[in-house]
Amino acid sequence: MLNPQRTIDELKELRALTGDENGAQRVAWTDTWAKARAWFREKLEGLPVEVETDEAGNVWVTLRGESEKEMLIGGHIDSVPNGGWLDGCLNVMGGLEVMRRIASEGTPPVTVRLVDWADEEGARFGRSLFGSSCASGYMEPDELRNIKDKDGITLSEAVGKFGVNLDTAKQAGQQLKNAAAYLELHIEQGPVLESMDLPLGVVLGTFGVERHAIRFVGQAAHSGSTPMDKRRDALGAASKLHLAIRDIAVRNGGVCTVGRVNTLPGIVTSVVAQADMTLDQRHLDADGLAAMLREAKEASTQFAAEEKVSEEWNLIWKIHPILFHPQLIQFCEEAIIETCGVSHRLPSGPLHDAAEVARSGVPTIMLFVQSLYGISHNKIEDTKEEHLVLCVEALDKLASKTMAWIVGQE
Amino acid sequence: MLNPQRTIDELKELRALTGDENGAQRVAWTDTWAKARAWFREKLEGLPVEVETDEAGNVWVTLRGESEKEMLIGGHIDSVPNGGWLDGCLNVMGGLEVMRRIASEGTPPVTVRLVDWADEEGARFGRSLFGSSCASGYMEPDELRNIKDKDGITLSEAVGKFGVNLDTAKQAGQQLKNAAAYLELHIEQGPVLESMDLPLGVVLGTFGVERHAIRFVGQAAHSGSTPMDKRRDALGAASKLHLAIRDIAVRNGGVCTVGRVNTLPGIVTSVVAQADMTLDQRHLDADGLAAMLREAKEASTQFAAEEKVSEEWNLIWKIHPILFHPQLIQFCEEAIIETCGVSHRLPSGPLHDAAEVARSGVPTIMLFVQSLYGISHNKIEDTKEEHLVLCVEALDKLASKTMAWIVGQE
Repeated sequence: MLNPQRTIDELKELRALTGDENGAQRVAWTDTWAKARAWFREKLEGLPVEVETDEAGNVWVTLRGESEKEMLIGGHIDSVPNGGWLDGCLNVMGGLEVMRRIASEGTPPVTVRLVDWADEEGARFGRSLFGSSCASGYMEPDELRNIKDKDGITLSEAVGKFGVNLDTAKQAGQQLKNAAAYLELHIEQGPVLESMDLPLGVVLGTFGVERHAIRFVGQAAHSGSTPMDKRRDALGAASKLHLAIRDIAVRNGGVCTVGRVNTLPGIVTSVVAQADMTLDQRHLDADGLAAMLREAKEASTQFAAEEKVSEEWNLIWKIHPILFHPQLIQFCEEAIIETCGVSHRLPSGPLHDAAEVARSGVPTIMLFVQSLYGISHNKIEDTKEEHLVLCVEALDKLASKTMAWIVGQE
Repeated sequence: MLNPQRTIDELKELRALTGDENGAQRVAWTDTWAKARAWFREKLEGLPVEVETDEAGNVWVTLRGESEKEMLIGGHIDSVPNGGWLDGCLNVMGGLEVMRRIASEGTPPVTVRLVDWADEEGARFGRSLFGSSCASGYMEPDELRNIKDKDGITLSEAVGKFGVNLDTAKQAGQQLKNAAAYLELHIEQGPVLESMDLPLGVVLGTFGVERHAIRFVGQAAHSGSTPMDKRRDALGAASKLHLAIRDIAVRNGGVCTVGRVNTLPGIVTSVVAQADMTLDQRHLDADGLAAMLREAKEASTQFAAEEKVSEEWNLIWKIHPILFHPQLIQFCEEAIIETCGVSHRLPSGPLHDAAEVARSGVPTIMLFVQSLYGISHNKIEDTKEEHLVLCVEALDKLASKTMAWIVGQE
């Protein structure tokens, strides 16, 4: 019988074991992460499962079923430094509870696997979704090999200590060969469900992202001796662009963020000679994303001309929108409505391992549970316990519907 | 006979002696500054003058006249690091040339004194106008005593090595007791004269300054999971305020500058939680300055409300506008017109030692010569040599008119 309270108790146990007064400290490729994973293995004792670690460091727990076809449930036990108690590990522990319920009913019709992805957060090396991108085939060893952490240790060296070799890590892709569906439960990490007073939501997919660094260069000039009409104020273009991208986001139904502005020479007595800013644009629709980028670039060019400054755009990173599976969206919505009476469809702003699995071709779905204050990656990250109970129940119902669907395909 | 070409030659000699490939290095209270001052003393040999250093480190060169009443000509031989070849020392060397001309004609009707103010730039300790503010009485020892340079040396310790004691430095005020007029020639350090194609201008006074640090605090939120209407974007208020203060400056006939913006957490994936910015407002009219400050504060409060962020203003520094002497403005304009046919009246955006002398009650005037590109505090700071000749000639004419005026007052 499903016991969601056990999930809550186990999450608190994990917090006590691997957190401190500043929050969760389960950064991937560290001793604390290893300790968390060892604790997780202890929790599997007595279950009729096999446990293996693949070439990318992902841990797979397999409950054999009548069919070789597999339903996967995935999460990540790693955290950011000073992180919250739910981000990632809720999926692992909630998935384990569902697996326990299924195992308690005898051999399931399909094989059920729980995966703890390695290094979802990318907190140490700035490269998120490591393990799942190895499985999906999108990890490029040469891009990662020489990335260093703040102590100068390379990613290659750090993962090597955990038995991972970048050149063979993509063999983890073999783990997906029988996968018929992938389910992932996660805290929302945003304010939407809380603002609607809803515990649970169906995730439609993950936003596509356009991430750019923009530089405007004007002319340093003395703040006292330079009349306003003689200035080439690089910050003028940056301020105008920041305000413009917010309107562009609203107009196109996406989100746009300027997270950083840096000014040079950056002194109180000089007009800004160089303004650097970051732009992060996200949309669930590829055309919407492209429109937001085009409008931002047009605005940038116009503002640079108005301010008589030069502009330079550099791509930091981009990814296409990834849509989840229509049938699984339907099942997830049904499971939520059966659990708490009302559901809501929303996109995921942050990326998740589910996006990597989806783009490898496996039918994928995510289930969100409300986050308090919309805050994550922080020790005050939290979700009401009554909502944690509901989300494990909904995941369980979703798993049952999904297994029946897989059986029906055979 | 006045020889302005000698001034140019001497300025080049000083540049070779105390500059390097990055520009002038005559930072006050350093060995290079001492070397420049020793070089200057050598230039005085053969002149019928007395030389003394006052309690604040200012060097006074006195040519006794028939009257004890004094006409002062002032400049500063110190520079910023990597500075230009004219800022400050043009006044000292141009003044010396005028003094030579006066001395060559026998005992002048009034006493003529040339002063090399100590540490006009404040480059090492961030406190400009040191020597002249000691003379004017506006230096506050307790505000300066423990200011440290980047190597941790206190201002008190650094000036002590040059025989200056903060607690007695204001005795330098005695030097002004017979002063009947103060003249200062300076490069404009701005683009106004160049844009009007004029070599010389009369300075009406120095701008009053309101300098503030403004902090807006909103809420960090994930750039992907937070809808636009759920954000409290601290940078939103900062960007709006930056654009607003530029309009406020134009509307009120002053200048307003945001020289620095800093964003926290300052990462590409987060809405800005805290935006810090500097505001520098300058106006020649006290009411105009007050209006600009009031309007900026009103705008700030409005934007903080719109963005649902908090605002906090902290005064960094302020000074009232200082107006130069009407009769000396008239003489300076006449001297310029006699020299090159056309003059222009303009305010000084930067502060100068002249402002300290003026507020001590001595009738004061400044003469500006065109700066190329409006650039100063940089090795590319420059002025056409033909304009340097004109400015020394105009200063000389101004000195003659001023001496006659002082005599007429007796």
